[in-house]
Amino acid sequence: MQINPLTRDTSIEPLPSPYLLFLGDATEPGFAKTAFGLRDWAPERCLGEWSTNAATVTTGLPRLTPKEARMRGARGLVIGVASIGGAIGASWIPHLVEALEAGLDLVSGMHHRLTDVPQLAAAAERCGRKLVDVRVPPPNIPIACGRKRSGKRLLTVGTDCALGKKYTALAIAKAFTAKGVDADFRATGQTGILIAGSGMPMDAVISDFGAGAAEMLSPDAAPTHWDVVEGQGSLFHPAYAGVSLGLLHGSQPDVIVVCHEAGRTEMMGYPSYPLPSIEDTISLNLRLGARTNAAIRCAGVSANTSRLDEAAAREWLARESARLGMPVADPIRGGEEFEKLVAACLS
Amino acid sequence: MQINPLTRDTSIEPLPSPYLLFLGDATEPGFAKTAFGLRDWAPERCLGEWSTNAATVTTGLPRLTPKEARMRGARGLVIGVASIGGAIGASWIPHLVEALEAGLDLVSGMHHRLTDVPQLAAAAERCGRKLVDVRVPPPNIPIACGRKRSGKRLLTVGTDCALGKKYTALAIAKAFTAKGVDADFRATGQTGILIAGSGMPMDAVISDFGAGAAEMLSPDAAPTHWDVVEGQGSLFHPAYAGVSLGLLHGSQPDVIVVCHEAGRTEMMGYPSYPLPSIEDTISLNLRLGARTNAAIRCAGVSANTSRLDEAAAREWLARESARLGMPVADPIRGGEEFEKLVAACLS
Repeated sequence: MQINPLTRDTSIEPLPSPYLLFLGDATEPGFAKTAFGLRDWAPERCLGEWSTNAATVTTGLPRLTPKEARMRGARGLVIGVASIGGAIGASWIPHLVEALEAGLDLVSGMHHRLTDVPQLAAAAERCGRKLVDVRVPPPNIPIACGRKRSGKRLLTVGTDCALGKKYTALAIAKAFTAKGVDADFRATGQTGILIAGSGMPMDAVISDFGAGAAEMLSPDAAPTHWDVVEGQGSLFHPAYAGVSLGLLHGSQPDVIVVCHEAGRTEMMGYPSYPLPSIEDTISLNLRLGARTNAAIRCAGVSANTSRLDEAAAREWLARESARLGMPVADPIRGGEEFEKLVAACLS
Repeated sequence: MQINPLTRDTSIEPLPSPYLLFLGDATEPGFAKTAFGLRDWAPERCLGEWSTNAATVTTGLPRLTPKEARMRGARGLVIGVASIGGAIGASWIPHLVEALEAGLDLVSGMHHRLTDVPQLAAAAERCGRKLVDVRVPPPNIPIACGRKRSGKRLLTVGTDCALGKKYTALAIAKAFTAKGVDADFRATGQTGILIAGSGMPMDAVISDFGAGAAEMLSPDAAPTHWDVVEGQGSLFHPAYAGVSLGLLHGSQPDVIVVCHEAGRTEMMGYPSYPLPSIEDTISLNLRLGARTNAAIRCAGVSANTSRLDEAAAREWLARESARLGMPVADPIRGGEEFEKLVAACLS
């Protein structure tokens, strides 16, 4: 798996890596999901971690000051922690300024922009360093042209948000590479972009350019090459379906994998909206996706079975696989089911 | 028909009207479509026209200098003309500065922003006037909540772009009002916004907020009130389908009217994409729209028959109406078919 900068499309700029991961003053691991995701999925980009003295969370990577990290080759400090409300914590700012002074660029996927914090903007200017907000799309996204591109594409789609579309795409890209298949993970959300080192923040793109952004993200490639594209939202989501449709049309997937959480019955945060069935999710994605790639097919289901114990999960996967007549696997549990799903993607 | 500012939602600011229409140096009526649309659909907002000496196109409205228009009560000069490439013509600038000096705000729906022209920005600052770019969405659009709102909504949807969705919505809103039905035209594109005096530029909204913008545009209303919402794009469009889906979900229409051009066989500008059938357009819009309003139904078809002569058009409308089993009318030709379509919307 090459989770690398987009070498084929120079108009998407790679992020400054390797990274020093900043954990702020996190005392709850749940707030440091970005740092853990980077440690797990992009270890080659992560030299160490750093935090305020109040932090108790650790990724297990070496603790380095910005100066030490810079001397070992780090180019960027990544904010690997979330705050309530999405703001840059006031207690973080001296540490972030210190990183700029040590020669590191700052990289953030937070809602609030680094460039909107006057102390950081001033320090970056003074030190000649960059503030990189990965939620900000590149400036030259074209209107989609709809031309069928060369190479193969897989898109993870979902019954809802936040149930494993990024994880599934990463796991499939890794499995493809392990089989000797030339594959790139293509990131569409902030954590994925930090992991891949580049990508397209689909949710921040102007509506008219959504499909064009997806086209830009997975350019023409060799006929045997696979782009494994991280999905966003759900065609059934009352707020985000438009994002999902632009991504589906622009990605032109040959293969979709439907992501679902076992046991979820309603849309997260939208209790009056029942979760769609897996079958409806497959049929709607195929119907709409066929508009830009008539050969689209569904290879199977990636299920998040984290609410179930191992035995119940394996039983659930087997039952759903029999019912749907296709591979159903939990990539976190792996095993034979996941191998079948990967094989079905490539078949 | 109240094509008025959004009185129920104070977060969308009304435009400065009445208008003086600026025709630039247009010598081709096709470039002055915005001015003609305003003259035809918002005559109460249009006091007169103005242009450079090179222009030969006229709307037939009185020719007024900005000073004269201001004295008659004008508050804004609207750029009613398009240029190739969407830029502000250099020859227009002295005239636009003169309008600012006369006390008029400038209003534009062009791609290039007024605020990006240094001479205009400086003159507006000096004169204490506003530069209003109607393609710029309001700042406080929420994420869609998906809650069913009170009041009735109609959305015009299309087999493609640029075939009459705005015109159809305007004609239906006008017909509703003529029947004594309380109705507002809700604009989603720049010309519609200029006509309505406010609205939501759907194509310029950040993707994540598309459905939320549509919710904001048609807020809770009296149970018998109709919002007639201007559609955008097509669910079958390889570049813009995401915009159409966000608008469909957020508008929660009770009724859709499918807009189509008789004789068009491929997507405009996308010759490798065949036009969808009217039946597929109905079925896909109903399937997707039912997600936020289970009671959605299709009242009929609004056909643009401008390529046909009167006899051929009437024959086409009758044949399609018999084939589809619903009213099919050309609102520009009007007549009994259109009355049937309006009645079906309200039934």
